[in-house]
Amino acid sequence: MQPYDIAILTTGDELLTGEISDSNTRTIAGILSACGYRLRCSLSVPDQEKEIVAALEYLLDHVQFVIVTGGLGPTGDDRTARAAAKALGQPLVINEEALEMVHQWFSRNNRRMDPSNEKQALLPQWAQPLLNPGGTAPGFRLRHADCELFFLPGVPAEMKMMFQQSVLPLLQQKIPEATPLHQRTFKLFGLSEPKVDRMVPYHQLPEGVEVAFSLDYPLVLVKLKASGKDAELQLDQAEAQLLKELGNYLIARNDETPEENVGKLLTSAGLTLSLAESCTGGLLTTLLTSQPGASAFLERAGVTYADSAKTDWLKVPTLLLQQHGAVSENCARAMASGLRHTTGTDLSLAITGIAGPDGGTEEKPVGTVFISLASATGVHVKRYSFSGARSRIQRMSATMALEWLRRFVLQQIEEQTREK
Amino acid sequence: MQPYDIAILTTGDELLTGEISDSNTRTIAGILSACGYRLRCSLSVPDQEKEIVAALEYLLDHVQFVIVTGGLGPTGDDRTARAAAKALGQPLVINEEALEMVHQWFSRNNRRMDPSNEKQALLPQWAQPLLNPGGTAPGFRLRHADCELFFLPGVPAEMKMMFQQSVLPLLQQKIPEATPLHQRTFKLFGLSEPKVDRMVPYHQLPEGVEVAFSLDYPLVLVKLKASGKDAELQLDQAEAQLLKELGNYLIARNDETPEENVGKLLTSAGLTLSLAESCTGGLLTTLLTSQPGASAFLERAGVTYADSAKTDWLKVPTLLLQQHGAVSENCARAMASGLRHTTGTDLSLAITGIAGPDGGTEEKPVGTVFISLASATGVHVKRYSFSGARSRIQRMSATMALEWLRRFVLQQIEEQTREK
Repeated sequence: MQPYDIAILTTGDELLTGEISDSNTRTIAGILSACGYRLRCSLSVPDQEKEIVAALEYLLDHVQFVIVTGGLGPTGDDRTARAAAKALGQPLVINEEALEMVHQWFSRNNRRMDPSNEKQALLPQWAQPLLNPGGTAPGFRLRHADCELFFLPGVPAEMKMMFQQSVLPLLQQKIPEATPLHQRTFKLFGLSEPKVDRMVPYHQLPEGVEVAFSLDYPLVLVKLKASGKDAELQLDQAEAQLLKELGNYLIARNDETPEENVGKLLTSAGLTLSLAESCTGGLLTTLLTSQPGASAFLERAGVTYADSAKTDWLKVPTLLLQQHGAVSENCARAMASGLRHTTGTDLSLAITGIAGPDGGTEEKPVGTVFISLASATGVHVKRYSFSGARSRIQRMSATMALEWLRRFVLQQIEEQTREK
Repeated sequence: MQPYDIAILTTGDELLTGEISDSNTRTIAGILSACGYRLRCSLSVPDQEKEIVAALEYLLDHVQFVIVTGGLGPTGDDRTARAAAKALGQPLVINEEALEMVHQWFSRNNRRMDPSNEKQALLPQWAQPLLNPGGTAPGFRLRHADCELFFLPGVPAEMKMMFQQSVLPLLQQKIPEATPLHQRTFKLFGLSEPKVDRMVPYHQLPEGVEVAFSLDYPLVLVKLKASGKDAELQLDQAEAQLLKELGNYLIARNDETPEENVGKLLTSAGLTLSLAESCTGGLLTTLLTSQPGASAFLERAGVTYADSAKTDWLKVPTLLLQQHGAVSENCARAMASGLRHTTGTDLSLAITGIAGPDGGTEEKPVGTVFISLASATGVHVKRYSFSGARSRIQRMSATMALEWLRRFVLQQIEEQTREK
């Protein structure tokens, strides 16, 4: 089932108290995955000799390659070398080669060596030291029966450099038949996960293509994975089949965000945009402007909370606000068309609603949101009822607005193509 | 050695490919740690039944409490319930109570249930379902010999809510003798980590109080920790000593964000605010409006990219823009004072600059940012040179603007107090 038996063991109290997240596992996993290796598991234990020993004993019995990070420093809570010696039944001795590495690091960096740093050369008897170009702690390599273990320091930059220089080439030598995993991600908006699942044309996908789902609210992510020499071809076929069913809901793909996609579409279509936000509080604007080059299409954006801001900046008639309220179809429409009248942009989009937790009424409960888009072809407006906490309602509203923009630009492009 | 045998098992291919970092482990570990519990280990495995079974079998033998997250969804790659049934030797059956929970979730949310969601009620025979208020997948609880297992969905918000509502109270009932770790976090802005380290009055802190640092760009977080019955008293003393040195840089504390703190200060001072952003693209506005009640102090905000937007909405004179450019001290000043003139708010703050990566010149390189604040006492403006990528420059600029607002309001409050 598992092509390669590789596991990661990270050590450190701070990993098990919620203070930091385990970036070393993520780094190693990312590099291995890109090279075609799959991890069997990752484990984290505190800086306790007993726990490190227990974890090593388990891994020795279950996997072929173990990458261990952390606990190689000079202080008292660095206990990994001792734990390794115990788990593998080897005495702990000063390793001359490692000691030389420590000395050289200090002389290379013109620093005086603290006696405590000698401890960093105290390794299990049969350890083979690994050079650490970025720090004082040498790594080391051990073998036990059928298992090969690599010990690296926990400092992320040192760990990463050593993994790439000393561990990865060895892994590639031992298991050269690795076949990189090719992967494509499709970000869908407007369908629930079960609905997407039902619409995936499983029977028409080439054999060997795996489908995986994940959620990135409010998006459903579908991943297609394949490996082997025909991977790209298989993925091309699978993608074509998938998009035949789901292409309409594709708001972005791979590493791209919906806002990047919409920004690119607007830029390539040469359309200008202005925005008026209320309940989303600037979220839509911030998403669009987080990308370089947003000023090419975005003329301006207003977060118009007060009625005075709506009448002054967006030219919403005071009477309309009095009659219909700021959260209404009429107001959304007036915001978008007033803004477009003022700015002269190709598109003006307005959002007004109640993000909560307060401000809801029976007629317009929290989650009531109006989106309106004004263009040369007219003004469209729609009422939505979103649910959840404030941040979810804001995120859903902003994503829905991005989807309006995406569909508008695509339709525009389609019409232009048809005219030709 | 280990006071409590608790372990976390997270499942998901994306945890072992470097695609995401394991935020669920961090969340659970943080809550447990705050309540005085220590984790023995955390484990992550891919969405493979065999691997989930192997991990469960190991944990069943080694710890007393296991918290499992992920793999309870309705799709084919959700395999945790089946793996649990296998590991514990129980048949998989439709759990009527869980099925009722799934049905109720859909009717409560006015959504039609997909047949595939019934799969979410397919649980090991002796499972006791746990209510999931935030999603369709019920969790469940199992017991095996001396081990108690809790299975929660992988969606972070659902997982967290269920852990707090259903798991934590049970743990606290079973192992009440935990001595909670008391902790206070001080979020500092304007100093580097080594500078903060040098300013911490280590020798004046009560014994037993630990100091830890972390970075949350652009903030430096200092944590004070203590446990035992005098913990709060010791922390009070330590806090007083720490703030004597560093209080001036304290932009927020504990779970509070700088924007929450500033929002509260503005609200309690009864001051109104309007904003004009350029290079930050609405980030400052979004930060302030992510909190409920922002409409109480924020009258409006404009992201005025184009010159036309600056002249039209902010009344910046066209001649000024021609002479000095949009990224200039004069323009920042004109944006803030023009905005304040238009809106009549107590405070008007403007940011204009070059977030990059393009648009820099020799005279005004990327990272050049002007901030201006207009109030009844005049208009202040300052030039900054920030460095780093676009997102860092935007974040730094927005945080600096929050710091201006914080200092203004505090000064105002101080003056009022002095007058009394």
